Amino acid sequence: MGLTLYDTTLRDGSQGEGISLSLDDKLRITRQLDRFGIDFIEGGWPGSNPKDEAYFREVQNMNLDHAKITAFSSTRRANIRAAEDSNILKLVEAGVDYVTIFAKSWDLHVTDALQIPLKENIEMIKDTVSFLKSEGLNVFFDAEHFFDGYLANPNYALKTLKVAAEAGAELLILCDTNGGMLPSQVTKIVQEVKAECDTPLGIHSHNDGNLAVANSLAAYEEGAVQVQGTVGGLGERCGNADLCSVIPALQLKYGEELVTSEQLKQLKPLYFFVTETANLIPINNKPYVGKSAFTHKGGIHVSAVRKNPHTYEHIEPELVGNERRVLVSELAGKSNLRYKLKEIGFNLEDFSDAMIKKLIKKVKSLENQGYQFEGAEASLILLAFREFKDYNPFFEIEDFRTNSVNRDNKTYSEAVVKMKVNGEKVHIAAEGDGPVNALDNCFRKALVSFYPEITETKLIDYKVRVLNGNDGTAAKVRVLIETADLEKSWTTVGVSTNIIQASWDALLDSIEYWLLIEAGISIN
Amino acid sequence: MGLTLYDTTLRDGSQGEGISLSLDDKLRITRQLDRFGIDFIEGGWPGSNPKDEAYFREVQNMNLDHAKITAFSSTRRANIRAAEDSNILKLVEAGVDYVTIFAKSWDLHVTDALQIPLKENIEMIKDTVSFLKSEGLNVFFDAEHFFDGYLANPNYALKTLKVAAEAGAELLILCDTNGGMLPSQVTKIVQEVKAECDTPLGIHSHNDGNLAVANSLAAYEEGAVQVQGTVGGLGERCGNADLCSVIPALQLKYGEELVTSEQLKQLKPLYFFVTETANLIPINNKPYVGKSAFTHKGGIHVSAVRKNPHTYEHIEPELVGNERRVLVSELAGKSNLRYKLKEIGFNLEDFSDAMIKKLIKKVKSLENQGYQFEGAEASLILLAFREFKDYNPFFEIEDFRTNSVNRDNKTYSEAVVKMKVNGEKVHIAAEGDGPVNALDNCFRKALVSFYPEITETKLIDYKVRVLNGNDGTAAKVRVLIETADLEKSWTTVGVSTNIIQASWDALLDSIEYWLLIEAGISIN
Repeated sequence: MGLTLYDTTLRDGSQGEGISLSLDDKLRITRQLDRFGIDFIEGGWPGSNPKDEAYFREVQNMNLDHAKITAFSSTRRANIRAAEDSNILKLVEAGVDYVTIFAKSWDLHVTDALQIPLKENIEMIKDTVSFLKSEGLNVFFDAEHFFDGYLANPNYALKTLKVAAEAGAELLILCDTNGGMLPSQVTKIVQEVKAECDTPLGIHSHNDGNLAVANSLAAYEEGAVQVQGTVGGLGERCGNADLCSVIPALQLKYGEELVTSEQLKQLKPLYFFVTETANLIPINNKPYVGKSAFTHKGGIHVSAVRKNPHTYEHIEPELVGNERRVLVSELAGKSNLRYKLKEIGFNLEDFSDAMIKKLIKKVKSLENQGYQFEGAEASLILLAFREFKDYNPFFEIEDFRTNSVNRDNKTYSEAVVKMKVNGEKVHIAAEGDGPVNALDNCFRKALVSFYPEITETKLIDYKVRVLNGNDGTAAKVRVLIETADLEKSWTTVGVSTNIIQASWDALLDSIEYWLLIEAGISIN
Repeated sequence: MGLTLYDTTLRDGSQGEGISLSLDDKLRITRQLDRFGIDFIEGGWPGSNPKDEAYFREVQNMNLDHAKITAFSSTRRANIRAAEDSNILKLVEAGVDYVTIFAKSWDLHVTDALQIPLKENIEMIKDTVSFLKSEGLNVFFDAEHFFDGYLANPNYALKTLKVAAEAGAELLILCDTNGGMLPSQVTKIVQEVKAECDTPLGIHSHNDGNLAVANSLAAYEEGAVQVQGTVGGLGERCGNADLCSVIPALQLKYGEELVTSEQLKQLKPLYFFVTETANLIPINNKPYVGKSAFTHKGGIHVSAVRKNPHTYEHIEPELVGNERRVLVSELAGKSNLRYKLKEIGFNLEDFSDAMIKKLIKKVKSLENQGYQFEGAEASLILLAFREFKDYNPFFEIEDFRTNSVNRDNKTYSEAVVKMKVNGEKVHIAAEGDGPVNALDNCFRKALVSFYPEITETKLIDYKVRVLNGNDGTAAKVRVLIETADLEKSWTTVGVSTNIIQASWDALLDSIEYWLLIEAGISIN
């Protein structure tokens, strides 16, 4: 059996805090996992809830390219026959070729959690696997808590594996369910199990010790042929082994050919897709796929990376669909800012050392006030423009106001803006879902006759952060606004003690950035 | 030399994206690291910026209990004497007993980044270490990029170590600067280095492969006596080895006595303190210290944990200052909700199965609308109260309005609320830093004569999340409000298409929750 990838984002991953996947979410993630080249997708536990049952009905119509869908369940309940257990029968009805059956391999769990005799647990494994095999299914056997069980009672833990193998399981997956194992323990235990069992082994690890990736690789080095995990390491407590780290390690460091190099370039998009679908915030410093994974800040690093990227990067970011970024911040020297200006399309020869210094000073002063340009490059570009270019603003604001009225527990918001667009005075009012949305709608109303394409842009995210007034001054808020048109998105920032003012400033930058690009003003 | 902990949060950690520590932040973090029992605190690089220079002046007045402060620098510049290099002289002036000197041990870096002869780099190491020793300092030698260097040119990499040791360095720290090593590589290379060098070794790893903790432990298993890292794994790109995972592993799994058990209980508070000071969002699924690290969601897990916590927890959460939590969510069965109700102080006998089912149904229906109670337990408690208790609301709202006016680029916000408090009609207006703050101020004005202690409560965080209307409906926003009094904080949630309405709902819950607790209504 060759090395295979097994994804359990849809089942184990969805047990993470704050994660709730709709049926449609699950189907869309399935499509992306299949395109990426995952071999097995654990779709859910058909016996546990109607959503998972519906998933197995729907997924049959998807015509997947490569992946096999597996249905998950525990062994049958105690003291009945597998053939009579409704959960087991739902596996048969799920319309899949592969099922994954988990069973306790730690005696403590049998006696304390299930509260049944050790022998009955063995019978449950034998009966369940045999029955599913007799129904023509391929059976993967998840030995839950295998490592803890092996340390507590090696004979019993091994017996659960042997019984499953004898009953016909094609693969025995050793699970570190509590996630507390050390890599050296995994290495030793996998070696010992291999000496006792001929059936191929898999590894399923959790990240409670921050070692799930290392434990997966340790088992792989000792011959495990299937690695289970989730996209981004989603999952209960500290999550499962992060396939976004495991896959590039196996492919780029161990030389396995699990997916094509084109598929591997979809790793970062896959992470963002799953994170977004699960409505979670992507983690910036996530290995391989995070926004900061190849981001350089320290001045020394930046100047070395400009000379030779290999100096501070363990792999080429493009291999996993990521990119090199350089930050402008107070730690940054001129070298960072020059790199950044070049990256965003300025001609470096236009900038003298004195100009660069002036811009750094301005950035630092704004950062001191609470601005953060690392996440708001569009505002940084505008800053450089306003500082150095013969720059005519597209509009001038005279004043604005906004009000929200609540009646019968419903709130209505409207805004009024007085401004000049291309020298023409306009005075507009609009409603909206709150004051910021109403102000945004005013803008669009004012600008649409001059720039009709503005209807294609849309505010897609709005983030507010209260900045702590550690020094006893009034708290400020920082607002980040992300706007998108049909092709791209950009982020702008505003800071003020008043949230409406901060939102307004970010909004102005957002529209102005779009006009700058849309109006076709060349950056050079 | 016994095993020591070396923290570089203040130096390497501050190179992470989005991190900017003020002088005051650095001093406050130093105090907490010292109290926690860290042996060495790398305070900064006095030669690189005035803030770090000021840090070394100030830290001398702190009377630390245990920790030694170290000053960081590169070796001297090429072609001058160490005694004449201003960066090196600043180390001597820093007033510390320990300095950490980093030097290139990868030939590529010497030739490509520094662009100097390999021999000059060796001279720089020898001269710098000797000079600092002659000034009476203890020298730790950071062999930057040691592992990559050893793989590329083992003789040269080893030579940098040997020269540093001969010049008097007390410790040779092997750095995986690019963070790309595998644990099995680290094991092998540390073994080989130990066969060549008698000087004690340390390990400094980065997390680009999601293996920094595993690599630190691999080096420790082979005899490294110092582990370097940062709190929460902060640092450039994917960060450094996370001491919040390394320390409990060494102490609880390997049996090292690095800190007292009382100090270890400060691990989670330390993580939150540093994260908050760095103005970052804590990561919920962080091993050991994250809010979700011992949080159970799947119904099976919850019922097993209730019987015996050891079944799904690799350590007792209390050992690291964390706690067990149980979530209420659509995956949850009755067992979760019962556990939760008990945890928040209800008497379970008051609830029939039918009542529990009704509450689950209500929670699920609200979650479908975008509510999330996992992070807003105060709203959940109110929900149970409103559902089951003979509950008299403290106030009734008639209506409210709020407006914000901008003139001369300044925004002024005010709100007006009509409400009944204890049957009395009140009509109040207040100004604020934005509409929500103005509404909050109205509340306080209306309630202060009835409940004077309300002046002790304060809105401390306000989070907005745009919920994607994947199905084409209007986007909703979810607002989370965190409020604190002198002793505790609580979080409430509101969801609406209008952000003012969502904020208002969360605000009402926040005040009502406080009144419920403050008014001393027993939960039973």
